[in-house]
Amino acid sequence: MDNFQEVLNEITNNLDTIKDKGVVASYIPELAHVDKNKFGIYLLDIYQNNYSAGNSDEGFSIQSISKAFSLSQALSIVGEDIWKRVDVEPSGDPFNDLSLLEIENGIPRNPFINAGAIVISDILFTHLKNPKEDFLAYVRSVANDNSINYDEKIAVSEKKTGYRNYAAANLIKSYGNIKNDVNDVLEFYFFQCSLTMSCKQLTNAFYIFMNKGICMQGKKYLNTNQIKRINAIMLTCGFYDEAGEFAFKVGLPGKSGVGGGIVALLPNKFCVATWSPGLNPRGNSKIGMLALEQLTTKTGLSIF
Amino acid sequence: MDNFQEVLNEITNNLDTIKDKGVVASYIPELAHVDKNKFGIYLLDIYQNNYSAGNSDEGFSIQSISKAFSLSQALSIVGEDIWKRVDVEPSGDPFNDLSLLEIENGIPRNPFINAGAIVISDILFTHLKNPKEDFLAYVRSVANDNSINYDEKIAVSEKKTGYRNYAAANLIKSYGNIKNDVNDVLEFYFFQCSLTMSCKQLTNAFYIFMNKGICMQGKKYLNTNQIKRINAIMLTCGFYDEAGEFAFKVGLPGKSGVGGGIVALLPNKFCVATWSPGLNPRGNSKIGMLALEQLTTKTGLSIF
Amino acid sequence: MDNFQEVLNEITNNLDTIKDKGVVASYIPELAHVDKNKFGIYLLDIYQNNYSAGNSDEGFSIQSISKAFSLSQALSIVGEDIWKRVDVEPSGDPFNDLSLLEIENGIPRNPFINAGAIVISDILFTHLKNPKEDFLAYVRSVANDNSINYDEKIAVSEKKTGYRNYAAANLIKSYGNIKNDVNDVLEFYFFQCSLTMSCKQLTNAFYIFMNKGICMQGKKYLNTNQIKRINAIMLTCGFYDEAGEFAFKVGLPGKSGVGGGIVALLPNKFCVATWSPGLNPRGNSKIGMLALEQLTTKTGLSIF
Amino acid sequence: MDNFQEVLNEITNNLDTIKDKGVVASYIPELAHVDKNKFGIYLLDIYQNNYSAGNSDEGFSIQSISKAFSLSQALSIVGEDIWKRVDVEPSGDPFNDLSLLEIENGIPRNPFINAGAIVISDILFTHLKNPKEDFLAYVRSVANDNSINYDEKIAVSEKKTGYRNYAAANLIKSYGNIKNDVNDVLEFYFFQCSLTMSCKQLTNAFYIFMNKGICMQGKKYLNTNQIKRINAIMLTCGFYDEAGEFAFKVGLPGKSGVGGGIVALLPNKFCVATWSPGLNPRGNSKIGMLALEQLTTKTGLSIF
Repeated sequence: MDNFQEVLNEITNNLDTIKDKGVVASYIPELAHVDKNKFGIYLLDIYQNNYSAGNSDEGFSIQSISKAFSLSQALSIVGEDIWKRVDVEPSGDPFNDLSLLEIENGIPRNPFINAGAIVISDILFTHLKNPKEDFLAYVRSVANDNSINYDEKIAVSEKKTGYRNYAAANLIKSYGNIKNDVNDVLEFYFFQCSLTMSCKQLTNAFYIFMNKGICMQGKKYLNTNQIKRINAIMLTCGFYDEAGEFAFKVGLPGKSGVGGGIVALLPNKFCVATWSPGLNPRGNSKIGMLALEQLTTKTGLSIF
Repeated sequence: MDNFQEVLNEITNNLDTIKDKGVVASYIPELAHVDKNKFGIYLLDIYQNNYSAGNSDEGFSIQSISKAFSLSQALSIVGEDIWKRVDVEPSGDPFNDLSLLEIENGIPRNPFINAGAIVISDILFTHLKNPKEDFLAYVRSVANDNSINYDEKIAVSEKKTGYRNYAAANLIKSYGNIKNDVNDVLEFYFFQCSLTMSCKQLTNAFYIFMNKGICMQGKKYLNTNQIKRINAIMLTCGFYDEAGEFAFKVGLPGKSGVGGGIVALLPNKFCVATWSPGLNPRGNSKIGMLALEQLTTKTGLSIF
Repeated sequence: MDNFQEVLNEITNNLDTIKDKGVVASYIPELAHVDKNKFGIYLLDIYQNNYSAGNSDEGFSIQSISKAFSLSQALSIVGEDIWKRVDVEPSGDPFNDLSLLEIENGIPRNPFINAGAIVISDILFTHLKNPKEDFLAYVRSVANDNSINYDEKIAVSEKKTGYRNYAAANLIKSYGNIKNDVNDVLEFYFFQCSLTMSCKQLTNAFYIFMNKGICMQGKKYLNTNQIKRINAIMLTCGFYDEAGEFAFKVGLPGKSGVGGGIVALLPNKFCVATWSPGLNPRGNSKIGMLALEQLTTKTGLSIF
Repeated sequence: MDNFQEVLNEITNNLDTIKDKGVVASYIPELAHVDKNKFGIYLLDIYQNNYSAGNSDEGFSIQSISKAFSLSQALSIVGEDIWKRVDVEPSGDPFNDLSLLEIENGIPRNPFINAGAIVISDILFTHLKNPKEDFLAYVRSVANDNSINYDEKIAVSEKKTGYRNYAAANLIKSYGNIKNDVNDVLEFYFFQCSLTMSCKQLTNAFYIFMNKGICMQGKKYLNTNQIKRINAIMLTCGFYDEAGEFAFKVGLPGKSGVGGGIVALLPNKFCVATWSPGLNPRGNSKIGMLALEQLTTKTGLSIF
């Protein structure tokens, strides 16, 4: 199993030579100022052995990766009823990064486009006593790490400039599929996206998705059926309109964020997180995608 | 492993009690007249043990399942260059079963929508000396079964009424992404769809997708990388705009056809085919989908 | 010219016998409670002779008819530069009454879809010292009637439930084509729509569009070129996605509102307003459309 | 009225100085080889006085202008029933010059997009004994000119490369809204488009649309109601997705073709044809549009 460490080192060396590291997200200053040369990778196998390289311990803004946590928490609270309010089909829309087109009669295409995650936030907002605090507590618990926190500056920045999310939320509200106040729901949503976590922390948290819903400390958060569903959605919808390409090249369920993080997993085998802030034209970490492609090619391990 | 037989029997009994078996495809008479109560299931594990129930030996029109074979043959002849002419993203279009909207600049969204399979047919038409004969020979060889044949009546029927496929092919041709004559390519395409096969024959043929590209007789048709790609596309695009739902509920790569057949597989474990002619509103076999959902739920075996 | 009075009487009698008067808009209580049997028509010729029948003196909520006034005021203040921020093409979208699809890169298709009128409101908001007061003063001046007023209850109702307008405004804002605060612009927009006017008052106000930009008192508000443009837009875009039908059957430039009002005009000849609260499925007054069709058929007067 | 001649001379001089004359259509060699510097204009008033400048007597390929003649002939044969098979709404689609998106359930948006004109051709094909001959006879009769003819070379060229029209026709056929053989209907359609006519001949033919359906020789072809409808459709749909712009800037009903011709008319006043082969990015003659804009601005004559 030491093999994993060798592979991570090799990948890190290979990718170091690539000069074009993509384009850092710039729509808010807090993301724009991150150093493009950062790279971290952290792999945790089911036996809880871990392997790492680069800046795997440094926190970054997880952004849309938080959608995996909010879906997980909503599913554990509400159960299968959440599928009445959000669909599970890939979005497939190459034209509209807002995915407004994809909100059919107020039902977003899946929980990993912004529109879908906003509906999930509305569901959580209804069921959690103190939404922001309770969601943070959930992530800390899953990751077994109380140092995880929101970055309030990022949340406030997104709130100020997130017009497309306001557009999506209001459109959904017009169909009655948001039950709470639009501003309240969006404020909660922006806080979720603002979580700062390292590759290590993300991998620890995703252990539940790899290990049948049971965390590293042995606590069960979700049943196997729910895990199967979350992993299926990660595979078909986890990478914006590049999901097909990721399944095709990497072959693992996963979730990416515009902060440059990606987490992926092979059920019952391992989970792995990468971080490199430069994005490709479709909004996923350029170097992170390559790292995971090399990982599954070199190890021959994928779900297919 | 005897367990599989028990599970198949249970599923067959369960599904027998369902009265609404969906709607048989009726756009050509040859499909419309099939008995809705037919049901077969056939499972083949990697050790070549087989298990079956119902009409698993009876031939039916495989229709779009043929797209897995044409993709496989094209990939083995042309290699990665085929991805210049067809994309690998899920289609996700709930409005247009023709998927004309999804032919961007002549590049179909994936090889499993009709538009994409027509481009694959064009590629094969260019490279095969006798397209119809050579494609049939390929399927017979993969399945190790020389009794497999086209149903010419079905092919002729589809040619007469396949206006949407003519529309798609001409639109693609207008972008230059069909190189041969539209009528020639479509005639070849309609023949592919007209193949008659049983659950058993389909399962035998799909053994290569489950077994790293190597057939039951030990011949290698595709390398592991190519198999990974085909399986990924089956998972994300194999079920029209119900691909997300299938991944979510069943959790296996697979391909369905309007003749009521579905083939699915768990890499390195087993492949399985079902047949029930009645379709759900999204064009997939209603009972077949349920059978496979029960199979993965009862056995706990899926890729996720 | 007495002829006009006869024609109006005939039309009123004809339409009185129609039992199905359409469906009154019900999205806010203030519109839902209007009596469906109300009908008024008022015609003013260029010589300022007027003819009327029914409830032509009773005020109703003009709603989208206000878009003609806001366009007119914006054009008179800013001139041709407004076309950099809103296009002049018909919307033609049968799927989306919100017309979000029609905001290309933040440029709405025309000033008479909600998205376009919101951009016009933003332009006015920038240039008017007291937007609400100054717009009201403009309409009063054009109509030469200081009794015209907003209905604040309606404005507040729309503000509370106008999620689709919030969606549109936020989407446009995301492209930078709204310069002021979204909430400020929408509040102003909802007040414009809330104007209460009678058929008589609307006809008096529209005299400028029929008479080369000069009002009944002889004051010039717009030049002939600007009038040509406003009339062209009324013809091609004045009736949601029924503009083609209206041009085809009635053959006059005009503007309708969900309050059941329609104003139309024949340049240099007459303008005419109708009111009947019941709407057809495309959102235009059912009886009003018929009245105007009969008017142009009986008199043989249209632009074509 | 001599004034018209002065205006035409002025316009011709003004436009002569413009260097960028647009881009000549190049999809078939017959259109590509036309001299870009050709310019003709011909105006005919209701009293049959005529005024002209430039190459107003030289024939060119009228292309989509033929859609006005086929609509006119179909309407005179079949009457209002044609509106069951084609709608009258502007297309408004900026994305798709093929307008496949605009064929809703097989009903094209209007008779002036290709899809709509193909349905009109199908209607004529059903009702005419010898479609090609009878349509030609109709145009010759309306124009009172037996020298008008098809350009068979152009028709054959379009037939060979018109894949988008084949796509549209097959899609419509799939909905049952083409009754005859697709190839027969398209061959007839391509011949219609191939008509060669001069500005003078076009103006003479369009006299019926300006003069209540009555031609220069006094024969009545259409009633006033039908004329009103054709003119309304010309105004709202006559210029692809630039119809709004043309109504806005020129303010006349009209029809353009990719051969560089435009015909427009002011009911009961005059009709006018221009020819300049270079097109603007939206497919209408660049210089022709400017000529007509100057004509209505200088004379103050438009429908608005």
